[in-house]
Formats: sequence, structure tokens, C-alpha cells
Amino acid sequence: MKIIIAPDSFKESLTALEVANAIEKGIKKVIPNAECIKVPMADGGEGTVQSLVDALSGQLLPVNVTDPLGQEITGFLGVSGDRKVAIIEMAAASGLHLVPIQQRNPLKTTSYGTGELIRYALDLGVEKILLGIGGSATNDGGVGMLQALGAKFLDIEGKEIAWGGEQLANIAHVDLSHLDSRLQSIKIEVACDVDNPLCGEYGASAVFGPQKGATAEMVTILDNALLHFSKIVEKELSVNIRDKAGAGAAGGMGGGLQLLPHVELKAGVDIVIEAVSLAEKIANTDLVITGEGRMDAQSIHGKTPIGIAKIAKRYNKPTIAIVGSLRDDYEVVYKYGIDAVFPIIRQVGTLEQTLNQAEVNLISTAQNVVKLYQMR
Amino acid sequence: MKIIIAPDSFKESLTALEVANAIEKGIKKVIPNAECIKVPMADGGEGTVQSLVDALSGQLLPVNVTDPLGQEITGFLGVSGDRKVAIIEMAAASGLHLVPIQQRNPLKTTSYGTGELIRYALDLGVEKILLGIGGSATNDGGVGMLQALGAKFLDIEGKEIAWGGEQLANIAHVDLSHLDSRLQSIKIEVACDVDNPLCGEYGASAVFGPQKGATAEMVTILDNALLHFSKIVEKELSVNIRDKAGAGAAGGMGGGLQLLPHVELKAGVDIVIEAVSLAEKIANTDLVITGEGRMDAQSIHGKTPIGIAKIAKRYNKPTIAIVGSLRDDYEVVYKYGIDAVFPIIRQVGTLEQTLNQAEVNLISTAQNVVKLYQMR
Repeated sequence: MKIIIAPDSFKESLTALEVANAIEKGIKKVIPNAECIKVPMADGGEGTVQSLVDALSGQLLPVNVTDPLGQEITGFLGVSGDRKVAIIEMAAASGLHLVPIQQRNPLKTTSYGTGELIRYALDLGVEKILLGIGGSATNDGGVGMLQALGAKFLDIEGKEIAWGGEQLANIAHVDLSHLDSRLQSIKIEVACDVDNPLCGEYGASAVFGPQKGATAEMVTILDNALLHFSKIVEKELSVNIRDKAGAGAAGGMGGGLQLLPHVELKAGVDIVIEAVSLAEKIANTDLVITGEGRMDAQSIHGKTPIGIAKIAKRYNKPTIAIVGSLRDDYEVVYKYGIDAVFPIIRQVGTLEQTLNQAEVNLISTAQNVVKLYQMR
Repeated sequence: MKIIIAPDSFKESLTALEVANAIEKGIKKVIPNAECIKVPMADGGEGTVQSLVDALSGQLLPVNVTDPLGQEITGFLGVSGDRKVAIIEMAAASGLHLVPIQQRNPLKTTSYGTGELIRYALDLGVEKILLGIGGSATNDGGVGMLQALGAKFLDIEGKEIAWGGEQLANIAHVDLSHLDSRLQSIKIEVACDVDNPLCGEYGASAVFGPQKGATAEMVTILDNALLHFSKIVEKELSVNIRDKAGAGAAGGMGGGLQLLPHVELKAGVDIVIEAVSLAEKIANTDLVITGEGRMDAQSIHGKTPIGIAKIAKRYNKPTIAIVGSLRDDYEVVYKYGIDAVFPIIRQVGTLEQTLNQAEVNLISTAQNVVKLYQMR
């Protein structure tokens, strides 16, 4: 029996690889010679680099970068075992978690560090960059990132503007002539699971600004700054970075990235599925087991198990989800190709106790799932 | 598809029938035309009367009886739909829960009320009595029960002894000539899951006395009283009620019952299995689903699911347990015929929240179990 084990991480307790290992242990207690193919998954959000590094036999590399407030910190990126693919999480350099709560202010924060991570990937000579843009502290339209890659944003006096979302209002001229030329020969796939436009009611500032520390007045300043930036770009470069679905992701990073060549915004889970060649693996399997920390009605919106199930259904493979918890509204997942779902909790306990039991409970649940599955 | 649903109750939340109904609902969400045969089960302990009344389309009858302290209370017994079988729980008349904690004293408590329940069953004209003897407040060797049925226990002056375990020391003569003659024409099956002898280190008083309120001195008095009782019986009636396995159950009730005709001590779950004709039902089914509130290594000692699995294996039927909680040491149940086990908890919560969710969680788990089972 050949089984694909392709779970997401269980947040706050186990990485995707650890989840896959536990499920494999449970399976092998029942079928010692089962062929288990572990494919640690992710949806482009937190944990994506670790999962892809695990899935692609790669490694994590520490990189000194500029944090959202301009301080040097040690960030990281991942590179595949064959050195052809770099995996970057914007949050590793420009994440909200890097900024103390009382200093969170998207008027000031820059995405410069994310540009440095991209530059480091170029130094490695990769052919492709997978970029997750969740969890950012910034609302600078990706201008900081572009600056790190050689773009110039000049004010009316011809001077480079400073860092931070509010500075975009000072842009008088954009100069891409010094953009790192190596960007011409690589592809950048951006994991983007929102379709917000750059500006306005559903734009970056209004929707995501407040969670990054923006007051109502700051939202207005930021939204106007992004609008000004987009107008300059449209006038000088004939590029509309305002209306594209996803332009408003990550404080306008989705928009700013449009100024780089060969950039594509895609659903995070689809990027990961392609990166790990999941379809080819599923084509030759008997059973697919996926999972995530918590399954509910929201799981159908770009979360890992549904992405997996979509591929599995293409090849008509049974797909079982093993999950940390299962909310009352979960049943919609059946319509998206999940054939059965099993939560792992075995006893009443505190959240901490339950998280600590996750590995043991996963092994037990996988064991019983396989016992029932082979009951024929 | 034909499915036997034969769970125990989930203590503190659902009766066995409610558990069976919830499992049926889950199954029918997947296979609307599945033929579900619900057999509410029990192991002879608490809930046995309710389960058998449910399984045998019977009814619960209120009966005025004498409680362990001699007060009149309303107890109950069950009778099958065909009026041929009475189901009695000793605890309904002589239960520890009927005695306030500060008044618990097995020197004084009597099993008289249990005898009244048996007498009431004789009045109903049943052919068989199923008697569960768990949870008693008494240590009177069943003498109170025998008195209610016409037996005489006389002291040295020829006077009837009073109620209570300590009074057995005063027995000088036993007279069974006035025992209710209807006992000759019925069978009494006693659900007994312990094999303690009447007296000594492993006897009724030493092992079960303390949980009924006996101090160390009281244990000695009670043990000596039971020994005296057994010696009189041996001398006058040539019956050894001391050494039989189970004689020490329920404060020596297991011993005292030996003075009645046609009494058999059996494992509780086996009595219930026979009463509901489970073997005949399982012979013609595709799948057996059982369950209990909590499964652990102790479950192999006479608990419902293992009893069910034993019958199911005789007919080579797959057997799945759905349980409220599942302890780390549970895996031994696989050796006893349980093919797979699924706990129902879906989210972290308090005990109260989890108990309140039991029905919803049962439906969900049954649904997913059947989805996985039919995945072939």
C-alpha cells in the first residue's frame, strides 16, 4: 500500500514534517511495510519555508537583513536541495512579530528587508523564488523591497525618499533603470490568498492597516500615499498596480511586486503543490492523508487540505483529513473532496495539555484510520 | 448495508439509547437507507435497567421499597415488553447513593429493599429476573433481601434479627421454609463482575466495606459476622456460600443469593448480550458499532464493547468502537476484537462543554467512520 502523507503544520505544536512523521508512525503500526511518502505542506503562510525546505530536502540559511524599523536582524530564507529554488517568507524580514506592539506604525515601517532576502536569493543563483507575503508589518506598497533591489523613488528635489508608508506621498519620480538585472532571468511566484485592490475601502490600508497599528487618520494618510504612488507609476511606467486582485496584499506589496519582471501572484497552496510535485506523487498512490491544526468552513478558502483534495480528486484518490480540532461548520469540506475527517483529541484537557499530546494523538488517530480503511 | 449499533451509555451525558440514536443519525447522513439495528447495551452496572428496558421495548415501573436505612422510598424496576423478564438494579433500593455520606454505616444498612423489588417481580409473573448488584450501601450478606422474600434469621431466643451487617453475628438459626414459593419457578441471573469470596482479606468487608463507610474496626466486625452467618448456613443447610467466586460481591449479596433456587452469577455484559439476543442479530449484519464513555485498558474487564466484540468475532464481523474519551493504555482492546476506535471530542473545552457536545460529536464521528468504512 502506497500512502501520500501531505499535512499542513499544526500551529503552536508541530511542524508539517512532524505531523507527517507522526501519521507515518501510526500507519506503520498497522501496516509495517506501507510505503509512506511524506510531503510536508503549507499554504504560503507561516511555516511555508520550513515545510518546503523539509519537502525539497533543502536547508534554511540565516541572512542579515533590515527589520521593519530599520535595525539589522538575522532573518532567513530557504533553498531547495538542488539549489534551484529559494523560498522566502516576507515575515522573516518585515514581519509584524518583529515590531514591539507599542512601536507598530505602518507610516514608518519598511519592506526593505524583504528586498534584501530576494537579493540574497539572486546571489545564490536560483532559477525561481517562492515568496510568501503574509504577516507583514508594512504598508509601503513594497517600495522598500524595490529600493533594496535597486529601484529609485525620488522626491521633488531628486532625493531618495525615506522608509515608511507615509513617504510614498513624496514620490515625484520612479527610476527602475538600476533594478538588479538578474531579476530578468528568474521567476518569482508570490503566494497570495487575498484579492484586495491597492487602495480604497477594500484596499491595503483600510483592511489590513489597523492590525498593523494604524489609527483611522493613519489609514487615510497611507491610502492617499499608496494612491499617489500608483498614479506616478501609471504615468511614468504605464503600469496599473492599483486594480489587480491581490495588489493590496501585505501593505501593497502585491502591487509593488508588479514592477518586477516575471512575477506571478498565485494561491499559496497551489505554489506549494507545484513546488513539491504533488500531482505526480498522487497519481501513483492508493490513499492520500492530509491534515491541518484546525478545520472549519474557512478551510475551503485556500487552506492546505482542500488544495490537496483537489489534486487527489483529479486522480480519483480517497482523501482523509486528520485534524487538531474540528469546528461545527466543517462539513462543507466534503464538497471540496475531503472524504472523511478525524479530529485527534482523545481526552478532555487544557489547550496546553492538548497541544502537548498532539504527536501521541496523531499516531493513535492515524493508526485507527488505517485500521478502518483496510477493513475490507 | 446492515449495521448493529450496540453501545453502552456515556456516563454523565447520554443513555445507551441516546448514544445509539446519535450514531444512527451520523450513519444515515452518509447512507440514508442503511438498516440500523439499535441495541442499547449495559454491563450490569448503573444504567442497565434503562438500557434493557429500551432494548426490550419495556417500561420502568416505580415501586415503594425500603431504603438501606429502613425508610420507605420510591425505587423502580424494569419489565420487558413481553412481560417475561424483570430487570432489577440493587442500587435502586439499596444503593450507596441513597444514604447521606455522614450516615453511611454498613453495620446498620439493609438489602431488604432489593428483596422487595424481587418480590414485586414475582407479583408481575415474570419468568426471569436479571439482577445487577453494583453500587450497594450494604454489607449484610443479602440477609435483608432474603428476609423480604420470607426467609427467617433467628437469634438464640428465636427472635428475628434486626437489619444491618452487624446483626448477622446474632444468627443462631436459619429457616427457609417460608421462602416465597414462586422463586421455585423462575430463574435469577445475577450480573457479577467481581470474583471476591465472602470473607477474609479479599472478602466483601475488607475490599468493599471502606467505600461504604466502614472503619477498620467495623470491617473486622462485619467480616466476623459474615463468617458466622456462613458457618450457620453450612451447618444447617449444607450450603457453602463462603468460597464461591463472587460471593463477596455487593456486601455478600453474591453469597446470600446462593440460598435462593435457580440463581446464577454471570458476567453482566453476558447477561445483557443474551437478554437482547445480540448473537442472533450480529450473525446477520455487515458491521458492528459499539461504544462507551471512556475506553482504557480496564475496558477488557467485562465492559460492554469487549463483550460485543467477542460475539462479533465469533461471526467474523468488523467491530468499531466510538468512545467519549480514549486513554493512553487503550490498545490492548485490539487483542479483544475491537478493530478500530474513534474518540468523539472535536475541540478543546471544559468537561461540561464536552459532555454537552456529546450528541453532536457522536453524530459527526459516526458520519466520518461510515464515510471511511465505505471507502472502497
